[in-house]
Order: sequence, then C-alpha cells, then structure tokens
Amino acid sequence: MNALDRLVTLFSKLPGIGKKSAGRIVYHILDSSPVLAHTLAKELTTLHQLIRRCGTCGGFTEADPCSVCADSNRDKSIICVIENAQDMRIIEEGREFTGVYHVLGGLIAPLDGVSPANLSIDKLLSRLDGVDEIILALNPTVEGDTTALYLQKILKSYPIEISRLASGMPVGGNIEYIDKLTLSRSFKGRTKI
Amino acid sequence: MNALDRLVTLFSKLPGIGKKSAGRIVYHILDSSPVLAHTLAKELTTLHQLIRRCGTCGGFTEADPCSVCADSNRDKSIICVIENAQDMRIIEEGREFTGVYHVLGGLIAPLDGVSPANLSIDKLLSRLDGVDEIILALNPTVEGDTTALYLQKILKSYPIEISRLASGMPVGGNIEYIDKLTLSRSFKGRTKI
Repeated sequence: MNALDRLVTLFSKLPGIGKKSAGRIVYHILDSSPVLAHTLAKELTTLHQLIRRCGTCGGFTEADPCSVCADSNRDKSIICVIENAQDMRIIEEGREFTGVYHVLGGLIAPLDGVSPANLSIDKLLSRLDGVDEIILALNPTVEGDTTALYLQKILKSYPIEISRLASGMPVGGNIEYIDKLTLSRSFKGRTKI
Repeated sequence: MNALDRLVTLFSKLPGIGKKSAGRIVYHILDSSPVLAHTLAKELTTLHQLIRRCGTCGGFTEADPCSVCADSNRDKSIICVIENAQDMRIIEEGREFTGVYHVLGGLIAPLDGVSPANLSIDKLLSRLDGVDEIILALNPTVEGDTTALYLQKILKSYPIEISRLASGMPVGGNIEYIDKLTLSRSFKGRTKI
C-alpha cells in the first residue's frame, strides 16, 4: 500500500467519511499546497497535549476549568446534563443556555455494556450544592430515555427541579412525514397558546 | 480560537466535510488514543514528499513511471483519457479496463478560465505512437462534452479510434426519476438485443 492509499484508509475510518469521500479528501490535499497537509499534521500532533478534560464539567478544554465553568456570568444554579463533550459545543452555538454543563460521558446501554457506574454520575451529585435546576439534554432515544429515568430517580431526593428537553416535531417539519412516536410525543407535550 | 476549534476549522475546509461533520471527526480523534492523531499527522507530513506525478500519464504515484504505466501486462494501445488522477483510482477499482491512462488535469471551462492550453493535451499527442484507441472517460457535463468535442477534432487527423463512455440510465435507476437529458441520451445510445 502506498502513502496515498494509507492516508485514504486512515481518513475512511473517521466518522461520517466513506472510502470515496476519503479519496476525494486525500486527492484534494495532494492537489493543494503542502502547507495544508503540514498545518493539519501540526494541529493533529499537538491536539492531545493541548486539549484536556475540564475537572468540573468534563468538557474538552485547553485551560482547566473550561471557559464556561470559569465564566462568572454563567448561572451556576442551572446544570445542563449532556451525553458527551460535543453536545456542549452544539448547545453553546445556540447561545440560548446561560447555565453550566455536566458531561456524563455516555448513556446507559446494557447491551453495549454501559452501566450507570461507567458514567460521571457521582461527580454530578458532588456538584449539587446551590443548584436549583437540572436540565437533562439527552437524546430522545431508548438509551437517552433510560438514562433520564435513572437520573430522575436518583435526583428526586434533592430539592432540585428536573426537566428534560422538549421532544416533538422539528421546526420546518411536516406532519405527513413525522414518525408515530414523535407525533405521539408532540401531542403529549402540547403547549397552551 | 483553541486547538480544538482550529482543527475543526481545518477539517471543515476539506471537500465534503461541513462544520458539524468536522466537529464529530475532531471529537472522535480526541476520544481515541493519541496514536490515531499521530499516525494521521505522520502520513500527512510525508504525503507530498512520497507522492509525485507519473511522468507518462500524470497520475499520482510513489514511483515514476506509475504501477499502471510500468506494468507490461497493460495494453499500451488503448489510452483512457480522464479529467483528474482520482478518476484513475475509481476506474481501476472496477477492474474492467486493461489499457493505460492519461490525466488531462481538468476540463475546458472558459467561465473558470480553463482553456485547452491549461490541459495536458500536447503530452497526450506525444504518446500516440502505437495507439489504436482512445477512450474519452470524461463526465457527461457541459465541460466534459466540450472537452470531448475539442479532443475529437484534434485527434481525427490520426488513424485512431475514438470512443466515449456510454451515457444513460444508471443501473438500478428508475425511468420515472431520470431527467430528460439522460433519458434522451439513453434513447440515442440504445443497444440492440
């Protein structure tokens, strides 16, 4: 296997990149100036040295605590519980949420061997001083539902309001194409106008 | 911008990778062992040193001439003319074609400032000794059609058979969903059974 094929194979193992896309990417890099390849290589080399887990929320960051946990303007009384660090990035882009985060590091999935003990739940419980609300921002999937139910049970002994992100029709969606479960949730979660 | 964001930005500039996919990829690399990041970095660093253009066909290769041009089993009397080096990879995967290739390095596109002088046409003409057939494997687009027509005009003074890849309905396609132009080409290129 030559250098080109080796790089195509490496790229095709990244999430969302198939063999054809990997080919297109490597040919693009070859056609571009070597500067692109070298910049990419440099950033990849130093990535794991520069980025660590935030000791408080578990998100990826260069400095510990991360910029969100260290920000005195963020409302520390609301914790948004998320599956992984990437969800934090996506919610931050929405600029809607002003509280802080807690990364679980996965969802309860007995079939995949993920039990509550594998998740950062003890850490969450140690952060509850002065917290008024916990928002469970977990995917509306079987694993997300299971994890939300589990956390709800554990947290109900604390004087904390627990909520979960609304599940229903996406904005711009069409009733005709929505699946039954989503439609059912839209009915259950209907809001007064 | 921290190291994570810099790498996401770099990845999102690669073809076929949007900002969200780039995020997924970088978080995947962060979650994986540093070995993945370092292997990728190493291959990227050496890519341009190891891979060069084949002096004969113009394809990307580690050794010059490339494995196809150097292979004595390949039929040197048939040249398959392609737009770029990546097309060679795709045709080779089909294991159908046993001749050799010639990379044009683009297609005639006056609006993008690509004229015949920018393409590797003189090089093609210098390779015609002993060639019986030229297959124009160019995309069935306006640019591909223009380039094919141009090459046909130049090559007609040589005692060489010129053909072009069949254009029509893709296998597994559905007449209902095929566009008019493709359907028209399917009729024109119909084959006797």
